[in-house]
Amino acid sequence: MSSAPQKTAKGYGISDTKNYTDFSVKEFKLKTPCKDSVTLDIEFCGVCGSDVHTITGGWGELGVPWVVAGHEIVGKVTHVGEDVKEFKVGQRVGVGAQVLSCLKCDRCNDDNEQYCPEQVDTYNAKFPDEVEAQGGYSTAIRTHQRFVFAIPEAIKSEDAAPMLCAGLTVYSPLIRNGTGPGKTVGIVGIGGLGHFAIQFAHHLGAKVIVFSHSPNKKEDALSLGADEFVSTSEEGFAKKYFDKIDYILSAADANSIPLSDLLSTLKVDGRLTSVGLPDQAWEGLQPQMMASNASAIACSHIGSKKEANAMLKLAAEKGIKPIIDEVLPMSQAGKAIEAVKNNKVRYRFVLKQDLA
Amino acid sequence: MSSAPQKTAKGYGISDTKNYTDFSVKEFKLKTPCKDSVTLDIEFCGVCGSDVHTITGGWGELGVPWVVAGHEIVGKVTHVGEDVKEFKVGQRVGVGAQVLSCLKCDRCNDDNEQYCPEQVDTYNAKFPDEVEAQGGYSTAIRTHQRFVFAIPEAIKSEDAAPMLCAGLTVYSPLIRNGTGPGKTVGIVGIGGLGHFAIQFAHHLGAKVIVFSHSPNKKEDALSLGADEFVSTSEEGFAKKYFDKIDYILSAADANSIPLSDLLSTLKVDGRLTSVGLPDQAWEGLQPQMMASNASAIACSHIGSKKEANAMLKLAAEKGIKPIIDEVLPMSQAGKAIEAVKNNKVRYRFVLKQDLA
Repeated sequence: MSSAPQKTAKGYGISDTKNYTDFSVKEFKLKTPCKDSVTLDIEFCGVCGSDVHTITGGWGELGVPWVVAGHEIVGKVTHVGEDVKEFKVGQRVGVGAQVLSCLKCDRCNDDNEQYCPEQVDTYNAKFPDEVEAQGGYSTAIRTHQRFVFAIPEAIKSEDAAPMLCAGLTVYSPLIRNGTGPGKTVGIVGIGGLGHFAIQFAHHLGAKVIVFSHSPNKKEDALSLGADEFVSTSEEGFAKKYFDKIDYILSAADANSIPLSDLLSTLKVDGRLTSVGLPDQAWEGLQPQMMASNASAIACSHIGSKKEANAMLKLAAEKGIKPIIDEVLPMSQAGKAIEAVKNNKVRYRFVLKQDLA
Repeated sequence: MSSAPQKTAKGYGISDTKNYTDFSVKEFKLKTPCKDSVTLDIEFCGVCGSDVHTITGGWGELGVPWVVAGHEIVGKVTHVGEDVKEFKVGQRVGVGAQVLSCLKCDRCNDDNEQYCPEQVDTYNAKFPDEVEAQGGYSTAIRTHQRFVFAIPEAIKSEDAAPMLCAGLTVYSPLIRNGTGPGKTVGIVGIGGLGHFAIQFAHHLGAKVIVFSHSPNKKEDALSLGADEFVSTSEEGFAKKYFDKIDYILSAADANSIPLSDLLSTLKVDGRLTSVGLPDQAWEGLQPQMMASNASAIACSHIGSKKEANAMLKLAAEKGIKPIIDEVLPMSQAGKAIEAVKNNKVRYRFVLKQDLA
C-alpha cells in the first residue's frame, strides 16, 4: 500500500422511494480499507432493473437512509491494498452486484460466494462494520478484490459494464444447467438480460429458441444468435416445442410469462430458471403444472467470480456485447430510471461519469 | 389366449362430487382386450389421497359420468393376451395409477411412460377407444402388460397395494434426485406417501431428516428410519439445517408447508419436489425465495414400470412395508374416503374385496 486511499466519494442518491428520481449529490464514506481492498474511479455504470425495483420500493423499504444505486460498474484502479496481487493501479476493472461475503464458508470456498449467507449487495446494504455500501452512480467504489473483475482489452468499457450484472445473471444459470453443444435452450424475455442470454447460449454451442411477446424483437433475436423466434402471443405456440427443450432461462417478469405453456416444452426433469424477480408473488402456480414432465422452476442470483471471468473471456473471444440504447451522463440517471420503469429501454442504458 | 376374457366387472362408484361417499354398485365394461392385456381379479385396493381429490371434485369436474376410484390394486391374473410373456394366470400382480400410454414415443421408450402425453389414468379417464377406465374399488381390472407389476413373494398383498401409488410416487423422485449414500434427504409430511419415503431414503443409504408439524409422529418417523425428526412448528427450526440438505421430497399439501424455511436448508442448486398436489394454487410464492441458493421447486408424477419393479425388489429385500391403519371391506369405501378427507388416517387404509 503506497499511501492511504481516499476515504469518500460523491454520488447521485435517493432517500424517498416515492420520489425515486429525485437524486441528490452527496459525499459518502467508502468501504473501510483493508489489505485486500481495491479502490477504483468509476467511468461507466449500467442501469439495471434491480436499481428500479430497489429505489422505487418494489422490493421493500430502503435498507439505508440514502441509496446510491448502480451495480454494473467499470473504472480504473486508483489504489490497492498490500495483499492485492491480481490488480494494479491504472488497470481497467469492473464491479458487479456483490461487494463482500464471508470468504470462509463452504459456499465461498466452492465458487458459490454469491450464495454466502453473509453476502453484501453493492448498494442498499451495509458492510459488517456498519459502513453503508453505495453503488456506481458515483465517482468511486472500494471493495474486496474477490469482487473485482479484470476487463479484457477487447471489450469496451461501456460494453463491459452491463455484463457485470445483466450478463453474469444469465451466464451463471446457463452454465450450471448444462448449456452447450447438443442442448436446446429456451430464452424468455428479450431485454437487458435476455439479449445477453441469447448470445451466451449461442456461443456456448446450444440451439437457442427465443420466446417473446414482442414480435418486433424477432430480427434482433435472430441476429444475436437465436435459431428460432417464437411469439408467445400466438395461440398454441408451445405445441410445436413439446418435449424439445432441455432448459429454459426466463429473464421476464415471472408473473407475465405463460408459465404453464413454457413448462410443457421441457423434457422430463427439465428446469426453468426465472431471473426476473417481480415485486409481487407468483400467481396461480400449482405443483400440478409441473407434474406432466417432472419439471422444476428455479431462481438464481448473479454469478461467482470464476463465472464472471469465464464470461468476460467468452465475450472477448466471441465479440459478445450489449446493445446499448443510450449512453447518458450520470446526472441524467433519473431519465434512465424512468425509461426502465416504463419499459422504454429495449436493452440497456449506460451512465457515463460526469461528477468526477 | 386360451378363451375370451370376461367383458365386464362390478365396482363401487360415485357420480356426484357433492355426494362423494354415495357409492353405487354397478357393472361396467372392462378395457377392450388385446394381445398385450392382462386381466386380474382384485383382492385389495389402497385408498389414496388422489381418490379423495378426484371424487370430491377438488381437482375439477369428473371426466366420466360414474367413477370407480382406486389405483393401488393387487389381485390374481385370470387371463392374459397372447403376447403376454411376463405374467401367467394365477400369478399375484398389481396395477397402479396408470393403465396405458402410447408405448411408441421417446418418453415411453426411455422409461418415462408416466410422462407420455397420451398416458391414461387408472380411473376417471377414457381409453383411446372411448371405453371408460375404472379403478380398483371393483372386482376386476384389465390393462396393458406394461402397467402390470409382479408382486414379490416376500410382500403381503395388502402391504403391496399402497406401494403401487403412494410408494412409487415417492420412490421415483427419490431415485431421480440422487438419493443414496453420502446424501442428506429431507422428507416433509409423514402420511401415506411420506412414511414410504422415509423407508426408501433410509434403505437407499441416505441420511434422512424428517420435517413434520405433527410431533406425535416422531417415534414412528425414527422407527421407520429417520436419522432426525424436526418439528416445523418450532420457531427457527430451519436454521440448524442451513445448507445441509441435498434434496427435499414433500408429500404434504404444498400450501401447508413452510416453503421458504425448507428451501433455506438446501445446498446450492438443490431441489424440493412436491408430490402433494393441492386443490388450490400455491400462495405467496416468489422466485426470490429461491434466489439465496439457486434452489428449485418441482413436481413429479408416479413412476415408471422400471422404477416400480426396482421399488418392489428393494421393499422385498429390506422388509419395507406400509403401516396400515385398517383393512376395511370394500363396501366401506365411504368410511375410508371420509377418514382420508378429514385427516383421520395416519398412514393408509386398504380395502378388501367383498363384491366378488
